[in-house]
Amino acid sequence: MRTEGSAVDRDRLAAITEFLLFADRLKTVERKGMVPGVNRRETVAEHCWHMALAALLLEREIGFTVDLGRTLSLILVHDVVEIEAGDTYAYDTAGVAEQAAREEAAAAKLFGMLPADLSEDLDTMWREFEAGITPEAKLAKACDRLQGFMQNVAAKGVVWKENKIDRARTSIRTDYPRAVDPAIAEVIEILYAKADDGGMWPPSADD
Amino acid sequence: MRTEGSAVDRDRLAAITEFLLFADRLKTVERKGMVPGVNRRETVAEHCWHMALAALLLEREIGFTVDLGRTLSLILVHDVVEIEAGDTYAYDTAGVAEQAAREEAAAAKLFGMLPADLSEDLDTMWREFEAGITPEAKLAKACDRLQGFMQNVAAKGVVWKENKIDRARTSIRTDYPRAVDPAIAEVIEILYAKADDGGMWPPSADD
Repeated sequence: MRTEGSAVDRDRLAAITEFLLFADRLKTVERKGMVPGVNRRETVAEHCWHMALAALLLEREIGFTVDLGRTLSLILVHDVVEIEAGDTYAYDTAGVAEQAAREEAAAAKLFGMLPADLSEDLDTMWREFEAGITPEAKLAKACDRLQGFMQNVAAKGVVWKENKIDRARTSIRTDYPRAVDPAIAEVIEILYAKADDGGMWPPSADD
Repeated sequence: MRTEGSAVDRDRLAAITEFLLFADRLKTVERKGMVPGVNRRETVAEHCWHMALAALLLEREIGFTVDLGRTLSLILVHDVVEIEAGDTYAYDTAGVAEQAAREEAAAAKLFGMLPADLSEDLDTMWREFEAGITPEAKLAKACDRLQGFMQNVAAKGVVWKENKIDRARTSIRTDYPRAVDPAIAEVIEILYAKADDGGMWPPSADD
């Protein structure tokens, strides 16, 4: 917090305002997942809200302690670089390979809009999320994967079918959250059961 | 957190999963604000992410201390009732008058999907936000108003013009965040200056 009674710093607040106005563009970056009920793909901003809600609800279900404020901060910030770097589809191998370089350049540009201390803080949060080492980053990253998987279940598997992603292949997105905690693994199992029961997978070569 | 080594509760996690799947609908509820660059209104889910980002960046600029995890939790949860109750346009006097009753019914239905303890927690968060008494609720509520105002600036005043909302009338949305803290008041001033310089207000009767 600002020291009590000290004057506000207009330049500093102007930089924060510009960043917040620019961040609006995360509502124009689309992910692959479809939003059921409306004929469009989920935006990255919506994804961030939904995974933050998941983290909030799962915090007390998991078997390790996290700082909730830090966890939610990592989630809110983790995809801001996609304003410049775009969303990379998890099953697009070529895209994933060059994703890191695009995101590094985006981070320098976007976080650089902020006052130096805040810029460094957000950059640190982004890297903490990506590294996935702290308990907060583990929960945040697990919720990232969980939310993406859940979105496909919410949309009855339409994107899996469209991209011929079979059940086995989704393990590259679900192995991580499963390994983070048994409660999260259980949520993943519940979602797989829904996908199986709902016929959400593409027809296999044997069909 | 779950007691270490204790088994996960499948029924409990199934209820959380259902709630999270249902919460997806907040991506289909539209607000009045337009998202520049794409021809559609902002969704409530996007609004929640954006105001959470604002709270994260303004936390250390304000002259009072908040628990960031609690502040962000209030923000993430505060509009979930709009899945059932819809968004009420701030300048729709009749809508605002009956909003409370609609939202009470929605809260009972939606939070009731969760296990009792979580249901009570989310209900408490929603009421804490609405009451606006705790420091966390004050920051969260200020960010709610700030974000809505900022969205109109981001969209160059198109919605103000469409609804003939003049500069003076916006005070019913900006007086609150201004009163919460001088740093937030400064951000509001910066946004008003942008609106003035950008010709974002509807033509007045005198023009």
